Amino acid sequence: MSVGSNGVVYARSHRARFVAELIEFVRFASVSAEPKHAGDLRNCAAWLAAQLRKVGFDRVEVVPTRGAPIVYADRLHAPGRPTALVYGHYDVQPADPIREWQSPPFEPVVRGDNLFGRGAADDKGQMFTHVKAAECLLRTAGSLPVNVKCLFEGEEEIGSTNLPAFVRRHRRALAADIAVLSDTRMLAADRPVITESLRGALSLEVELRESAHDLHSGNFGGCIHNPLQALSEMIARLHDRDGRLMIPGFYDRVRPLTREERAYMAEAGPSDAEILSDAGAERGWGERGYSLYERTTIRPALNVNGISGGYQGPGVKAVIPARASVKFNFRLVPDQDPHDIDRLFRAYVRRIAPPTVRLAIRTDLATQPAVVDRNHPGVSAAVEAYKKGFGNAPVFLRSGGSIPVVNLFQEILAIPTVLMGFALPDDRLHAPNEKFHLPNFFNGIATSTHFLMELARIGLGAFHDHRATSFPLQAATMEVVL
Amino acid sequence: MSVGSNGVVYARSHRARFVAELIEFVRFASVSAEPKHAGDLRNCAAWLAAQLRKVGFDRVEVVPTRGAPIVYADRLHAPGRPTALVYGHYDVQPADPIREWQSPPFEPVVRGDNLFGRGAADDKGQMFTHVKAAECLLRTAGSLPVNVKCLFEGEEEIGSTNLPAFVRRHRRALAADIAVLSDTRMLAADRPVITESLRGALSLEVELRESAHDLHSGNFGGCIHNPLQALSEMIARLHDRDGRLMIPGFYDRVRPLTREERAYMAEAGPSDAEILSDAGAERGWGERGYSLYERTTIRPALNVNGISGGYQGPGVKAVIPARASVKFNFRLVPDQDPHDIDRLFRAYVRRIAPPTVRLAIRTDLATQPAVVDRNHPGVSAAVEAYKKGFGNAPVFLRSGGSIPVVNLFQEILAIPTVLMGFALPDDRLHAPNEKFHLPNFFNGIATSTHFLMELARIGLGAFHDHRATSFPLQAATMEVVL
Repeated sequence: MSVGSNGVVYARSHRARFVAELIEFVRFASVSAEPKHAGDLRNCAAWLAAQLRKVGFDRVEVVPTRGAPIVYADRLHAPGRPTALVYGHYDVQPADPIREWQSPPFEPVVRGDNLFGRGAADDKGQMFTHVKAAECLLRTAGSLPVNVKCLFEGEEEIGSTNLPAFVRRHRRALAADIAVLSDTRMLAADRPVITESLRGALSLEVELRESAHDLHSGNFGGCIHNPLQALSEMIARLHDRDGRLMIPGFYDRVRPLTREERAYMAEAGPSDAEILSDAGAERGWGERGYSLYERTTIRPALNVNGISGGYQGPGVKAVIPARASVKFNFRLVPDQDPHDIDRLFRAYVRRIAPPTVRLAIRTDLATQPAVVDRNHPGVSAAVEAYKKGFGNAPVFLRSGGSIPVVNLFQEILAIPTVLMGFALPDDRLHAPNEKFHLPNFFNGIATSTHFLMELARIGLGAFHDHRATSFPLQAATMEVVL
Repeated sequence: MSVGSNGVVYARSHRARFVAELIEFVRFASVSAEPKHAGDLRNCAAWLAAQLRKVGFDRVEVVPTRGAPIVYADRLHAPGRPTALVYGHYDVQPADPIREWQSPPFEPVVRGDNLFGRGAADDKGQMFTHVKAAECLLRTAGSLPVNVKCLFEGEEEIGSTNLPAFVRRHRRALAADIAVLSDTRMLAADRPVITESLRGALSLEVELRESAHDLHSGNFGGCIHNPLQALSEMIARLHDRDGRLMIPGFYDRVRPLTREERAYMAEAGPSDAEILSDAGAERGWGERGYSLYERTTIRPALNVNGISGGYQGPGVKAVIPARASVKFNFRLVPDQDPHDIDRLFRAYVRRIAPPTVRLAIRTDLATQPAVVDRNHPGVSAAVEAYKKGFGNAPVFLRSGGSIPVVNLFQEILAIPTVLMGFALPDDRLHAPNEKFHLPNFFNGIATSTHFLMELARIGLGAFHDHRATSFPLQAATMEVVL
């Protein structure tokens, strides 16, 4: 039996312990958006570091930041072979609305083939596959076939505030030939996917103020422009009847796809019906002329993440609130630049804001769109690994999400990131009753094991050759793919 | 010195104790909208009953209801003289947003001439004037000049849920010649007002649902009609550019005022600048062709009291919420019927709701508009009482608010209610930093004292004569005034 196969056998025979350890990991309420969970984030990082030491990484460090700590680990015993940088995040989304969970979000439980809990899939379960793959290889072969560096952060869900400075400061220590990140989705449990593009993101908050204080809606109703009404009227002027954004210049830099690329997407990607079924929705909506898959991947979008203002408790409160605010989230595609879009959006919002209100706009985060090159040797290794781990070759799909770290590794470390996702469409990322499919956990461990073996087989030369012949990475991938 | 003047002297010499007792009253967090305050409501009712006993009412009862208790008291020692029914409410609005209060809402404090605290003006301070007026008369004259019944409820701010059944059941025990209610505003501390009309109210909640659960705004952004966006688009279709409601049939039954009535309003009522100053707003808004005073009194209005949906916490959450909801509050004028408007609104909302969403509409409360007759003897008594209590004759103003109990007394007891308000325009009813102007408290006690004296002077005959010669009350007042 090969080294990889031995590793897979090891994982199978330690199944119960692996699941129990994942449950321990998910139990930490490591919600990065909520300051009250700072202690949970620190405890989770400490637990993760202890796990990495137990697995057999040589150097394991918990690096404090102004926010949640960064956990770094490496094992570099394969001179002359490629180096893989495994990235993941141990922080999770807020769990609200809590009352919609069938079991408490931070008391993970196995029901059937699934582990339920906030962060089970995004990203604790997925990143843990790589940790356990290293364990399998070290326990069975005594060594890793390539050099492995792990970089696990605790602020991904709030825009990776402290990661860029860390990566810049440690760019030499983090040098690698390929990064791998498991935080994306497959089409089904037997249909693996390599995500080849991500949308950029731009999050802003807009606040309107009208009166100096809340007013009685009897006494003042009819003579004051209610800020919630004014806000609604502005939001209604963002999309036209064709589902297109009305911000002047918004689509100017959106690259059209070739007919061939759209045909591949139509064949490989999810149908409208599949997307609606995943969403639990009856009808689609959006930009006319595109499939739902295209609308969520190669077309930009704007969503309202939340509106705040007025009385939201039980019963009636006759109030005209003094203020109203909204959280907006853009998803952007090549070659839209979030900073350009920020400027266009602000100009448009100022123009459509009624003269009665005072307006404040704040930008919370901005991320570039990203694409990866199918011909990169790290991507080829991932294709082979999936065949062995899941029994099927992966298709290349585009994602509507944004993973800023992919841009960061491209810009600072000059390496692409293989998006080797193990989540399923119904894993309810960011929503109540998030889960992780346990068969994917174990097939993911097998895939990660084979990925490291495959990188060793391909060898360092292929990486050097690719780097020498390819265009500068970011420009090249955009040229080739879009 | 007259009996009334002796009473005023008594109040002046017990000033500190009267303020201390009002502070005790305001200290109860008797928020009827929030179930957690049920105990505070009960304790407040018990305190009020003890106060009424101490003052000298004969029969004092705390009557349990399914909600907050009703406090009833009477002293009926004046056979052959008129009977006044004093109504007030000891419940208060929710205090949120708490952080905008300069001092805690339920730790009342005197700063300068004002007592700050939730309910200081609405309605604890105002209703307490009548309690203390009775004390002044009983301590100085040993008796009340007319029969007095007190009816204090604890659910006014949530639509007086249990009051109608109580009034119907006890209509004989509550029989009176005039009701008096102090829960309205003056123009200034030396410019008293009798409110001659109230708007009706209709509160509804509309909920939209799109997907079965919250969705990731990256993965699904662009292919689902975000419920907060859909809701905003619907709200934007409620008002046209002239500030008029677009609901078909909405204005059909709005009675136009005569030129004379509008001229009186322009002369007696607040200017646009005064209203904006009270609101702390820079610009007015609303139905073209009407002053701000008219827009808030003789014209109907619709306000958004609150919108709920999505993530409202700190930072960013990339979510498409499964649901969004809005609380609406209509203010209606004669002859609009809230049940008709409810029907028209529902039909319109169903028509403008996009086909992508599931819609639910709930009606929370409905109240008829109300007007009172300036020629009623109870109103004449109030005019004289204000002259003595505040040194100036009151003007007749219209209010934009709604007081369902006025309709109730009209319909069940067949008596009008004198709206003898003691609040000031800047008392911030329903808003943070609510206050009551203490000079108004003492002038209010004097006014209430003189009101009871004046009712005795006018005598029961005038009430009988008015009843015999006037048209059926509700129709008559609408004919005469509007």
